[in-house]
Amino acid sequence: MNKVEKRVLDIINIDEMIGYICELISIKSLTGDEKEAQANVASKLESIGMEVDRWTLDLDELSKHPDYSIEVDRKEGHGVVGVTGKEEGKTLILNGHIDVVPPGDESNWEHSPWKGISKDGKVLGRGSVDMKGGLACAIYAVKAIRDAGIELKGKVIIESVVGEEDGGVGALACVLRGYRANGAIIMEPTELKVAPAQAGALCFRITVQGLAAHACVREEGVSALEKFIPIHNALIELERKRNERVDDPLYENFKLPIPLNMGKIHSGNWPSSVPESLVVEGRYGIEVDEDIESAQKEFTDTLDAVVQVDPWLRKHPPKMEWWGGQFKPARIPVTDPLVETVVSAYSDTTGDSPVLEGVTYGSDMRHLVNLGDTPTVLFGPGDVRDSHKPNEFVLVEDLETTVRTLALSILRFCGY
Amino acid sequence: MNKVEKRVLDIINIDEMIGYICELISIKSLTGDEKEAQANVASKLESIGMEVDRWTLDLDELSKHPDYSIEVDRKEGHGVVGVTGKEEGKTLILNGHIDVVPPGDESNWEHSPWKGISKDGKVLGRGSVDMKGGLACAIYAVKAIRDAGIELKGKVIIESVVGEEDGGVGALACVLRGYRANGAIIMEPTELKVAPAQAGALCFRITVQGLAAHACVREEGVSALEKFIPIHNALIELERKRNERVDDPLYENFKLPIPLNMGKIHSGNWPSSVPESLVVEGRYGIEVDEDIESAQKEFTDTLDAVVQVDPWLRKHPPKMEWWGGQFKPARIPVTDPLVETVVSAYSDTTGDSPVLEGVTYGSDMRHLVNLGDTPTVLFGPGDVRDSHKPNEFVLVEDLETTVRTLALSILRFCGY
Repeated sequence: MNKVEKRVLDIINIDEMIGYICELISIKSLTGDEKEAQANVASKLESIGMEVDRWTLDLDELSKHPDYSIEVDRKEGHGVVGVTGKEEGKTLILNGHIDVVPPGDESNWEHSPWKGISKDGKVLGRGSVDMKGGLACAIYAVKAIRDAGIELKGKVIIESVVGEEDGGVGALACVLRGYRANGAIIMEPTELKVAPAQAGALCFRITVQGLAAHACVREEGVSALEKFIPIHNALIELERKRNERVDDPLYENFKLPIPLNMGKIHSGNWPSSVPESLVVEGRYGIEVDEDIESAQKEFTDTLDAVVQVDPWLRKHPPKMEWWGGQFKPARIPVTDPLVETVVSAYSDTTGDSPVLEGVTYGSDMRHLVNLGDTPTVLFGPGDVRDSHKPNEFVLVEDLETTVRTLALSILRFCGY
Repeated sequence: MNKVEKRVLDIINIDEMIGYICELISIKSLTGDEKEAQANVASKLESIGMEVDRWTLDLDELSKHPDYSIEVDRKEGHGVVGVTGKEEGKTLILNGHIDVVPPGDESNWEHSPWKGISKDGKVLGRGSVDMKGGLACAIYAVKAIRDAGIELKGKVIIESVVGEEDGGVGALACVLRGYRANGAIIMEPTELKVAPAQAGALCFRITVQGLAAHACVREEGVSALEKFIPIHNALIELERKRNERVDDPLYENFKLPIPLNMGKIHSGNWPSSVPESLVVEGRYGIEVDEDIESAQKEFTDTLDAVVQVDPWLRKHPPKMEWWGGQFKPARIPVTDPLVETVVSAYSDTTGDSPVLEGVTYGSDMRHLVNLGDTPTVLFGPGDVRDSHKPNEFVLVEDLETTVRTLALSILRFCGY
């Protein structure tokens, strides 16, 4: 680490950054409802001296794009991008999403999900780990460089995006607006691992049809639940087979690199009626280099095989939909200069080599890599296991490592 | 058939009765919300010259009774009973419930469920078969006897009761108010069979606990759905075993005299989360002479056997509740004078012997027989298969047979 780098790291104000994360958490920004939080980030980016591009997403236009996928009932969306630096070096994007998932039953939370709190070495609240913490690290890394009076040769771009949780409409909009770069870091919670690969995840919905009957003549009806059970079992077997096949070294530590999850099941509406339909919604993990259509075919073939051996299902085939978030996989070579930069920055920050590993969840990486031709890694504080849960938190220690690693990565990638 | 009987049958005005059924259908009377319909029936009973007893149910007091069971959120309930005749003969109760089940998706109805329509030999609308049609038959049978100027030796009592669909609070209230008799007919849709026995049905709810996890680390969670599947299979097997055992001649034509139905299943709330719980609600059929506690034990033993072989379930045993409608079985001897009366009345009305058969569904019979010591049969127009469904209907032909059979039954049972 040279003197300039040391000066920048010394300038980083962790306490102020934690205060800002708490401020962001306290602005509710459920997917589809991010306006206020985006306005806050835009002001923040301006306050640290970035040029800010703010625009309203053209949802009609975006919806025509083949990579558009959305689950919530979105009325509007806002783009916020900050830029600083010159055209003389490489450009680096730091991307973070501002939207958060619903808190569920708030009585399961020790503190309000909508009040950021710093306590016992943690920052708590909805969005702390997924991913207002990571987004704030990017902002404070750039702030430190500017506060140190460093002039970057290349540009650094901070993208605060909406709608990541339900398909990435905000990141898609950034790419289509022209934001591409020589590299990008998405500050998703990777436990500080560097992830140059991301498995895909396709949301699906299966509707199984039965035949209603009063429970007192149950045998005259057909229970959609009973008809679903062999489908469930076949899908579990499909998951086993597919995961056995994965031999990607970036996923060797995962038991289930491409999980198939059946997450939501509703059937019937009266205890004394035979349930006439069953709807199951889930997500289907896709290997990093897998062809999407072949993977979809493997799924529907599995479903068809169950249908073919059951006379009722043959006559009343279940309805199959690929619906909601369609997260395609993405990968960049581990030899990409971006990977090298982040690895060295992490090593110099911590004294340790980072783990290089793929992630099994979907993120905006696919839009940046596949559509934007921007080599991208995921790298961020905290554990994805603590996201989408009550009492979400991120460790302050992780936030410190992240902001420092990002600051060094910007300096080294963009030059000064 | 003697002259008096013939005169009474001739006086019955079927068209007027159908008009009244349509009027009753057009007064929405969902379980828990029967006030307006009960007021209408009370006026009707007065208009045909019956003494009417109207009262407000004391729900607090009723809720202390061991036979009280309820599912809806009931704010109030109304009792309506009409009486006519003298104390010189036997007393006969005609019992019908005024409450109806929800129509479900109204777009599946050809006509509005809340508009009674007479068309092509049918009366259509919610409650037509279950059981405003049957209730109107009782009223018009009594009306014909009164219009004919016959003085009954015994008393005939018409009970219009609320809350049958969710546990029979209205019939319970009638018994506790002192309405007991030498015989009772409940005009449930029996396809004009005479039913001196009724199987029981106990509503149950099982809550299976899993462990939530993000779908990307699915193997770190426990799917409540997966844990439920062996429970489902064990309950299906229990149903098979129990039904094989039934050798009651009144049930010899049923494939499943005591069905076990799993009618409503909800699990999980996000496609990308492992479902942390599953709730299944259903009803458990009980043999006519079966001991309720032994039957419940057989059910919970079956559940326990699944739990014992699964380490997760052993540590997190499913929650089991007997909840909502708890319809105990009931039976009277086929040699009871009431059965003889209804059989002869039906035979003289139609020229055919009626079928004597038990029913597999719960009704208010249990309150009248078990608590009120009143020998009771079910006998009424239409098919229970057409109840609880869109486009509910009852055949006019069945209504005619019912009102005539009821009129003759009253004359012969009460004397004149």
